[in-house]
Amino acid sequence: MPTNKSTDFEIVREKLDQAVRILQEKNVDLWLILARETSQVRDPCLDLLLGLDLTWQSVLMIHRSGERVAIVGRYDAPNVERIAGYTDVVGYDHSIREPFLTHLSRFAPRKIALNFSEHDPSADGLTYGMFRLLAKMIADTEYADRLVSAEEIVAALRGHKSPIEIERIQAAIRDTEDIFQQIGTQIRPGLTACQIAAWFRESVSRLGPEISFAWGEDYCPIVTPGPDAPIGHAMPGDFLTQRGQLLQVDFGIKREGFVSDLQRTWYLFEEGETSPPPEVVAAWNAARAALEAGRAALRPGVQGWQVDQAARQALVEAGYPEYMHAFGHHIGRSAHDGATILGPRWERYGTSVEGAVEVGNTFAIELGVRVPNRGYIGCEEDVLVTPDGAEYLSHPQTALWCV
Amino acid sequence: MPTNKSTDFEIVREKLDQAVRILQEKNVDLWLILARETSQVRDPCLDLLLGLDLTWQSVLMIHRSGERVAIVGRYDAPNVERIAGYTDVVGYDHSIREPFLTHLSRFAPRKIALNFSEHDPSADGLTYGMFRLLAKMIADTEYADRLVSAEEIVAALRGHKSPIEIERIQAAIRDTEDIFQQIGTQIRPGLTACQIAAWFRESVSRLGPEISFAWGEDYCPIVTPGPDAPIGHAMPGDFLTQRGQLLQVDFGIKREGFVSDLQRTWYLFEEGETSPPPEVVAAWNAARAALEAGRAALRPGVQGWQVDQAARQALVEAGYPEYMHAFGHHIGRSAHDGATILGPRWERYGTSVEGAVEVGNTFAIELGVRVPNRGYIGCEEDVLVTPDGAEYLSHPQTALWCV
Repeated sequence: MPTNKSTDFEIVREKLDQAVRILQEKNVDLWLILARETSQVRDPCLDLLLGLDLTWQSVLMIHRSGERVAIVGRYDAPNVERIAGYTDVVGYDHSIREPFLTHLSRFAPRKIALNFSEHDPSADGLTYGMFRLLAKMIADTEYADRLVSAEEIVAALRGHKSPIEIERIQAAIRDTEDIFQQIGTQIRPGLTACQIAAWFRESVSRLGPEISFAWGEDYCPIVTPGPDAPIGHAMPGDFLTQRGQLLQVDFGIKREGFVSDLQRTWYLFEEGETSPPPEVVAAWNAARAALEAGRAALRPGVQGWQVDQAARQALVEAGYPEYMHAFGHHIGRSAHDGATILGPRWERYGTSVEGAVEVGNTFAIELGVRVPNRGYIGCEEDVLVTPDGAEYLSHPQTALWCV
Repeated sequence: MPTNKSTDFEIVREKLDQAVRILQEKNVDLWLILARETSQVRDPCLDLLLGLDLTWQSVLMIHRSGERVAIVGRYDAPNVERIAGYTDVVGYDHSIREPFLTHLSRFAPRKIALNFSEHDPSADGLTYGMFRLLAKMIADTEYADRLVSAEEIVAALRGHKSPIEIERIQAAIRDTEDIFQQIGTQIRPGLTACQIAAWFRESVSRLGPEISFAWGEDYCPIVTPGPDAPIGHAMPGDFLTQRGQLLQVDFGIKREGFVSDLQRTWYLFEEGETSPPPEVVAAWNAARAALEAGRAALRPGVQGWQVDQAARQALVEAGYPEYMHAFGHHIGRSAHDGATILGPRWERYGTSVEGAVEVGNTFAIELGVRVPNRGYIGCEEDVLVTPDGAEYLSHPQTALWCV
């Protein structure tokens, strides 16, 4: 079911205005977003700048002057006009070349940003085939060597959340917490991961067709009962909840285009037990403390890897192995919302961990500890960066949920 | 709700086997599919070759020998193993470079296909940023200048449907026809396009969470009442159905990963009328005849533009203006399933209309006529190419539906 398009378009107009300010700040004249058949391959920036699908070859041109031109197939033009955020909507029939080159030479940009990035997938929505088409169209112009990556622009535009975006993220978090609470009352020994996952999916279904999953529903939620179930992104399997073991669930929803991402951990008492065994409590405390150490380091101006280092070091110093992933990632339109990652300086993270944290960023922060023979403890909360540091958007889990 | 993963993985294994045969036919040694954060940007080939999401930088390597290696982040590895279609699943932690280069030099390919294409969006899933990452990784190897486009491979793999794929497309068509029938009984004067669209969406909802829309739900269905509503891909608006006017609806669903795409047209009688006015009947007959002329031309071996030309010419010769789009497109995983387009030789279609029709292709074929003061007539049916020509998969609308 489509979300409320008039509110969606309001956010799009807000983002278009913000994009113009960012172009001025970063001293880039023109930002080009190329698209076609977006139900097949879709630049994630289109969620921010358009909120619609496009069919034929299309170009969005955002200029530092405030002008925004959308050149799209004639059948897509009426939809783009309804956004009321583009100063000029051009619908073409046979070829995009002529209207595109006309507007390009009118703008006469010295620096043109394109959506390619080696290290930020959310800024890498331009396909190689479309890049080649563009390169051919401008080969004989003076613009051919004025192309730069838009990754800084995308990072600022995605990363800096507006009040309405933060509100939507918070609403997604509230629903997610409610679902965790409801399902928490049903946790008992002898459930398979698949059964528990099905409950989460049914809860999402009951919220109506406009609520969906924060990530691929094959493994949303991720359900890890006991010590043998694989952790990470695995699809739920036949492992059972058992007394004396842990159950960890990683789950989020998408609501009005924005997501939540949380982990919660239960301990299932043995007969007669009234508190978890000491090694489980110790591991929980170390994980929570490390999460808090990371959150304390998460302040405007610090680089991504520094935040990760604070959490990682706290966990290792408490005697636990380091987690094999990043401490934090932006959340917003996606569960992994691109831009700066709060992660270690491993090759696979590239430059994404060198970026700086900014006021208005929303992150999921997370880490975990395996407890031998018991299972996996996962802590994950969602936070907002303010001038004073990282505030919780979620109600953090401060102790194991025992059943 | 996830579809039945074991059947999905069966189709993936079938497609992987087919891919190997295509590599042998096309004389390509190795096909590389690069991916990361696929919930942000997703190569459409992953639906065929994986059926899962991936998070970190990942490479699928399909070799003409039949070997298939998946190098993915360690947390994604257990899911990929469950496909049971990859001979080797490698989960890495810090960097993909070493395992990738090791396997690459083991394969020692002379020709490496990559998913980039200027004219086929379904074969253009490689982003420019990932292309650059790859180019850097192999810059100092002998493989740097052995890269070719995989578009021929993708076109063959997507275009040639297996029996199970055709079955799923047919099931989607049946459900779509049922919905058209149900809603047909409710068509009357005074309905807005939005109301009618809502009925279609509710019908999809009632089929359960595993059924979704064939394309972006903002304009699925497309509802065009009367002469003033915009045609093409426009979102439904406030135009009303009226006596003496036409109503056209373009609609499709996705079921078990495969889509339908049909148009149906109604005429709303004036008080006392028992058949539509002559100019409406004449336009309908011309549209149907042109559709049939195109279908007759749709045979194995002909080029896409030749099929379009047959339909276009029939319509123009009957005295109607030519339609401003392509006559036909593949359907399958997507409503616009890439590969050969049955379209005119306009620049925007590039080389996509030069490809040849093959046995096992499934197409939506469509065209339309505007009738002044009455509205839009759209004919669209789904067909399967057999050695003897194009057979209907849908039950074609052979006369206007009058209410």
